[in-house]
Amino acid sequence: MAAELTAHELVAQHRPTLDQALEAIRTRAYWSPHPEHPKAYGEHGSLDAAAGKAAFDALLGTRIDLGQPGTDDWTGDELSPYGIELGVTYPHADVDVLLPAMKAGQRAWRDAGAEIRAMVCLEIIKRISDRTHEFAHAVMHTSGQAFMMAFQAGGPHAQDRGMEAVAYAYVEQVRTPDTAEWTKPQGKREPLALTKRFTAVPRGIALVIGCNTFPTWNGYPGLFASLATGNAVLVKPHPRAVLPLALTVQVARQVLAEAGFDPNLVALTADRPGEGSAKTLATRPEIRIVDYTGSTAFGDWLEANARQAQVFTEKAGVNTVIVESTDDYRGMLANLAFSLSLYSGQMCTTPQNLLVPRDGIRTDQGPKSYDEVVADLAAAVDALLGDDARANALLGAIVNPDVKARLDAAAGLGEVALASREVTNPDFPGAVVRTPLIVKLDGAKPDDEAAYMNECFGPVSFAVAVDSASDAVELLRRTVRDKGAMSVGAYTTDEEVESAIEEVCLEESAQLSLNLTGGVYVNQTAAFSDFHGSGGNPAANATLTDGAFVATRFRVVEVRREA
Amino acid sequence: MAAELTAHELVAQHRPTLDQALEAIRTRAYWSPHPEHPKAYGEHGSLDAAAGKAAFDALLGTRIDLGQPGTDDWTGDELSPYGIELGVTYPHADVDVLLPAMKAGQRAWRDAGAEIRAMVCLEIIKRISDRTHEFAHAVMHTSGQAFMMAFQAGGPHAQDRGMEAVAYAYVEQVRTPDTAEWTKPQGKREPLALTKRFTAVPRGIALVIGCNTFPTWNGYPGLFASLATGNAVLVKPHPRAVLPLALTVQVARQVLAEAGFDPNLVALTADRPGEGSAKTLATRPEIRIVDYTGSTAFGDWLEANARQAQVFTEKAGVNTVIVESTDDYRGMLANLAFSLSLYSGQMCTTPQNLLVPRDGIRTDQGPKSYDEVVADLAAAVDALLGDDARANALLGAIVNPDVKARLDAAAGLGEVALASREVTNPDFPGAVVRTPLIVKLDGAKPDDEAAYMNECFGPVSFAVAVDSASDAVELLRRTVRDKGAMSVGAYTTDEEVESAIEEVCLEESAQLSLNLTGGVYVNQTAAFSDFHGSGGNPAANATLTDGAFVATRFRVVEVRREA
Repeated sequence: MAAELTAHELVAQHRPTLDQALEAIRTRAYWSPHPEHPKAYGEHGSLDAAAGKAAFDALLGTRIDLGQPGTDDWTGDELSPYGIELGVTYPHADVDVLLPAMKAGQRAWRDAGAEIRAMVCLEIIKRISDRTHEFAHAVMHTSGQAFMMAFQAGGPHAQDRGMEAVAYAYVEQVRTPDTAEWTKPQGKREPLALTKRFTAVPRGIALVIGCNTFPTWNGYPGLFASLATGNAVLVKPHPRAVLPLALTVQVARQVLAEAGFDPNLVALTADRPGEGSAKTLATRPEIRIVDYTGSTAFGDWLEANARQAQVFTEKAGVNTVIVESTDDYRGMLANLAFSLSLYSGQMCTTPQNLLVPRDGIRTDQGPKSYDEVVADLAAAVDALLGDDARANALLGAIVNPDVKARLDAAAGLGEVALASREVTNPDFPGAVVRTPLIVKLDGAKPDDEAAYMNECFGPVSFAVAVDSASDAVELLRRTVRDKGAMSVGAYTTDEEVESAIEEVCLEESAQLSLNLTGGVYVNQTAAFSDFHGSGGNPAANATLTDGAFVATRFRVVEVRREA
Repeated sequence: MAAELTAHELVAQHRPTLDQALEAIRTRAYWSPHPEHPKAYGEHGSLDAAAGKAAFDALLGTRIDLGQPGTDDWTGDELSPYGIELGVTYPHADVDVLLPAMKAGQRAWRDAGAEIRAMVCLEIIKRISDRTHEFAHAVMHTSGQAFMMAFQAGGPHAQDRGMEAVAYAYVEQVRTPDTAEWTKPQGKREPLALTKRFTAVPRGIALVIGCNTFPTWNGYPGLFASLATGNAVLVKPHPRAVLPLALTVQVARQVLAEAGFDPNLVALTADRPGEGSAKTLATRPEIRIVDYTGSTAFGDWLEANARQAQVFTEKAGVNTVIVESTDDYRGMLANLAFSLSLYSGQMCTTPQNLLVPRDGIRTDQGPKSYDEVVADLAAAVDALLGDDARANALLGAIVNPDVKARLDAAAGLGEVALASREVTNPDFPGAVVRTPLIVKLDGAKPDDEAAYMNECFGPVSFAVAVDSASDAVELLRRTVRDKGAMSVGAYTTDEEVESAIEEVCLEESAQLSLNLTGGVYVNQTAAFSDFHGSGGNPAANATLTDGAFVATRFRVVEVRREA
């Protein structure tokens, strides 16, 4: 069939962007082609705020028919954390029909080569970028993120992470040349000479198992890494967060078709709540790659059971911040207060355990006792969230009833230093909005350990009193080793303490943010520069993004013959 | 301690070699710094033939004391396939003592950085290269390879494979810069600015489980890939092939110490026959990487059970050569005869199933019936091995009684087209030397399938009659998919058949050699250019060598702070 998007056009449009992305992952300096400001959209074919909102509204109550084989069953009952029923239905695929159909286009996709695959992926991301406003509402009303966060994290930041994966996938595939002339001297005899051809071949079909809180941000790296390395990709979203990934699949299928490829290279199957189709899908022989973000229990299950596949997991950890000393007490408190509040602590990188010496800390405001530090942090959170409008804009909504139940229970774990407060969202009366809870615990008490040594996902933090800086460092080590960590933070002006914390993070493979007091937060990572997770501790077996994240998604087959 | 080998000296000596290796893996053209000819050794500090033989002889009957912690027990009862008792004993380590000691030097080794680690690895390889003659005897008298093969495959080719792993490890680590300055514009406000430091950190202790047939060639890639990425390495050789790896560990420890590092970063533990210590070792929590070459059963066990580790396996496959047509009948027969004979077929890449259409093939010598092809191949093997001296030089010795028993039993599997012949080795009367057996089987008979669809490791090949070229292609596909393949060969002058075979190899991830009639054989691969295995079919989960072979052996830890 004649492609509407020719290879020439795709390369002309996207190769310069790919080259910039390749330079960014080489230098890890700041770079992003996707504007963060909502007002930057509305020209050059992108939807502005009003058009994006209208597009989202038009989706409500509709059936998203992706034109996939094996679809005569539909499902979908997403309830926005803001209280709206989305009413959108999606294909509940007959995978016995769909999976074979997904294989049909793989040969042409493989033969297109790494560059064209990268170009097609960048065109998909470009089309998604143009609809960032629409996606922002879709992410907001599935994850419960506040609009601005849904816009940025679910839009440009997710698109960045997808493009980063494309860049790594591309560079990994072209490390081996397409052909080689091999000529081996044989002394006085004729040299041995072979012509070798090397082809990057896909593993097969990749499965992306989406999560509730960051459907696009956590879904795009695996989706684009697998697609860019020649695999077909089946997306199985979280039942509460289907819409953003269904739109993504729709765009991908459109672009693939326009570029002359089989749209079935990317497909979606939604499951019913409680159906648990991910287990069945992940262990099917056709599935050769699995990307998963979610609970440790299911991530561990996938690693143990989806043995026919390369499995990439981001599970859960217990994130620690050591508060040992600071020369910017107010900056520290403001920074921490923001980290605890953003999206009601529902990020895998949100700090949970704040380790504070029970004898207090040194600061530029003089010594502060443990109680003072905790009270001042509580006050900083209160000040940050005192205004309801601002609180709503930062907190978003509680994503599901499990998080709310955990928050309610956590207040009984110890002395409450900061109670969680209910906030009303005037625009969405159905939204469950809560401020962070801070509970005091004692690092020396075995009973308290049961609380702080387990992940309590949601707006819950523990101010853990420790005996000393070295006690904090050892608790950090034990926490990362046993429970994993997606992020570690520390505040210290003491070189020895800093060095000890760094050493623990190097030895236990944890990503460390030191003395953040300004506008960067421990729970945020930037694509092309920061690694998200390390892949070296129990919280995740992979990192976003490095060579290891893409290198096993394809193989190189060599065909050699005499020259 | 003052290092005898300074970083400056190491870089001056080895950086140019590393740069050449990096260029070689980029172009995959021919390159090797290690001479293949025995006469090339004897100058610049390397041992010549006589000195190498004397050094080997001096080892016999000795104890190799590596000075490792946790050694008050010794073992070793290697019996050369050539009939000599080596009488060498080795540390049977108390790993509860040894493993903690191996961790002591890891921090300094990590902090040395990727370049210095590469330099130290290249110095180790250089010292081994200087003793190639000595190693050749050690490989010969453990693997049963004939001297020239032991010299080349166990010496320069193994050293090449080790260096290739060092090159991949180096380049993988330096893909991320040591530091980055990240500055994010904030419109009219001050930009956000972070300083980021990235450190490649090791997984922990790596375990190399050696094999009987190619202790150095198959051992070096994992050993050097893990060491170059900052890990400590424990080597557990096959009980019948300890000596070459014990010498390797000895050299590595010497070089590490001279360069100012802890020699315990590389250690050896030999086990007693039947002790099976590999299972216990591979599942210890300290072991975070396992490299294994050997049986499918134990490789599968490791993949399923050594879950705390990154596991790299080279197991067994069923290698196929399709014989469909040729324009060089004599060249094809000679090439195949050599492939079947080299090291008595005891290579993981030796062809096992020769698929020949039952209606015969087209050749430059006119049409040949199935019977003629098989008889002519048998005659070619006979001609190649007719002279006992030449036969001994090609065949080597049968590595162990299991292989001999399998060979004896295989003669009963079908009509014998070429009987295995006993060859006397005048230098080593105790050697068990056998020529290849060729058995005729019928691809359409279910009884025969039980034979040809299982690996029969040793000098056994099956001439399998198939209905047609497309029948051969489908049998190839099924064999690779179900049993795996380390190599695939094909002879065809038909473009359609060639294309179908290539497509099967691309779809099933098998490395293909087409129409080899000269001095390159399907069972040989050259480091820096050929991939050994694909990592994409059941014969192996990794390939030698690509980015995936090194990328998960380390992690990158980021420490960021405000600029």
